Amino acid sequence: MIQNHTDNIKQARVTLVGAGPGDAELITLKGIKALQTADVVLYDALVNDEILEFAPVNAVKVYVGKRSGDHSFSQDNINRLMVDYALNYGHVVRLKGGDPFVFGRGHEELDFAAEFNIPTQVVPGISSSIGVPGLQGIPVTHRGLSESFWVITGTTTDGKISADLYDAAKTNATIVVLMGIHKLAKIAEIFKNEGKGQLPVAVIQSGTTVNEKVVVGVADTITALAAEQGITSPALIVLGEVVSLHPTFKLVKEVYDVVAKG
Amino acid sequence: MIQNHTDNIKQARVTLVGAGPGDAELITLKGIKALQTADVVLYDALVNDEILEFAPVNAVKVYVGKRSGDHSFSQDNINRLMVDYALNYGHVVRLKGGDPFVFGRGHEELDFAAEFNIPTQVVPGISSSIGVPGLQGIPVTHRGLSESFWVITGTTTDGKISADLYDAAKTNATIVVLMGIHKLAKIAEIFKNEGKGQLPVAVIQSGTTVNEKVVVGVADTITALAAEQGITSPALIVLGEVVSLHPTFKLVKEVYDVVAKG
Repeated sequence: MIQNHTDNIKQARVTLVGAGPGDAELITLKGIKALQTADVVLYDALVNDEILEFAPVNAVKVYVGKRSGDHSFSQDNINRLMVDYALNYGHVVRLKGGDPFVFGRGHEELDFAAEFNIPTQVVPGISSSIGVPGLQGIPVTHRGLSESFWVITGTTTDGKISADLYDAAKTNATIVVLMGIHKLAKIAEIFKNEGKGQLPVAVIQSGTTVNEKVVVGVADTITALAAEQGITSPALIVLGEVVSLHPTFKLVKEVYDVVAKG
Repeated sequence: MIQNHTDNIKQARVTLVGAGPGDAELITLKGIKALQTADVVLYDALVNDEILEFAPVNAVKVYVGKRSGDHSFSQDNINRLMVDYALNYGHVVRLKGGDPFVFGRGHEELDFAAEFNIPTQVVPGISSSIGVPGLQGIPVTHRGLSESFWVITGTTTDGKISADLYDAAKTNATIVVLMGIHKLAKIAEIFKNEGKGQLPVAVIQSGTTVNEKVVVGVADTITALAAEQGITSPALIVLGEVVSLHPTFKLVKEVYDVVAKG
């Protein structure tokens, strides 16, 4: 399977590049420059196809998305593909959605390349955890509302909610949950159990893309609202007072206040 | 002071752009495109000057850094400058270090512009909280070490350490503290008081720039180490097991292990 271009071998190297949250223009200039010199691009499921156009036309482009349900692309396989391509083709750009180190297993891939003495570089990407709420008018921090934000996976290696979420529900941090949409009811319940049923919550699907959908409510209502709107993966969840700054939330609150006064 | 170009007035608008952590190439393509159509750029202290070159030569470029100690650039003044320039010059790009919503007061500026019915747009930036550790080989999350990361300000509005840090020290999250270098001893003490004196800690100054400096240790030692190396602002602090993945930390640990075995 592996071709060996020994006649014209290039320097093997790997650049781990964050593609950003979806919108192709949210890749960095440094990421574009890496792609322009790529011999091979290995890209994930959540990477916008338009970004591949920054790579040379004759570069090899391989989809290694793990969401396909195809077991041939386990992490081990991706690691090996990456090294094989680097040794045989030269510059491999490993293109990952968001930032490579935010639940991206980027460090494992760099480690694997290092075992083969392949030089590696990193180009950070816009993490959806910050960029997607921001573009929806929800700042992860805001004077008087939040002095911190805490980003947590909704799906750990063993498929469970991270235990960190139980701690998070007790704090004043803005909480952003990635890959947690299928556990939304459970996550909302954790916050309700801390007496935070009225905490503002937003769910944003396919942020920064043409398919973007947003639902805003509170912990008590968000699960039903998201179900009504047919929200599905990929989606992130933001829990915290900063969600009250979203235009929709202000509207909802005004209606409530009028009803309450009436 | 305000000139009124009524003869050839352009559409007033404001684009809030994240400039990224320092390296000029870590701005997004979308950010570059916004700058290319700027009539005015208002930029902060931590923005790399090279980024201004993406704006037209004849665009007005105004430094509004609040670190100058010059009281003329209070947040109120920045807000007013932004609106005045938009109404009189057209497209104002408000360029902020990192991401505009990570302790950037970006939402306050958007709110102010909205009061004058000036349309606003947002372009997220690479937050130093993720990108700077990542480029140092410290992933904010890593399978088996960290399922979450929590970003906290070291300097709240009233100049104190955020109360969130006391909660953070009790959790398993990777903790990233921005603007906290002058309170490093106090921050380390909070973790030591939780029995985490041996928790790996990194301090990174001027990340992604030619002036970058990094110091790696544990909560018990980091304050002395950072002082020895003359670490100063701007710098961020990373506390968590993921710091053990930094090459320097591995080296330190190997030396310790040899000594322990000897």
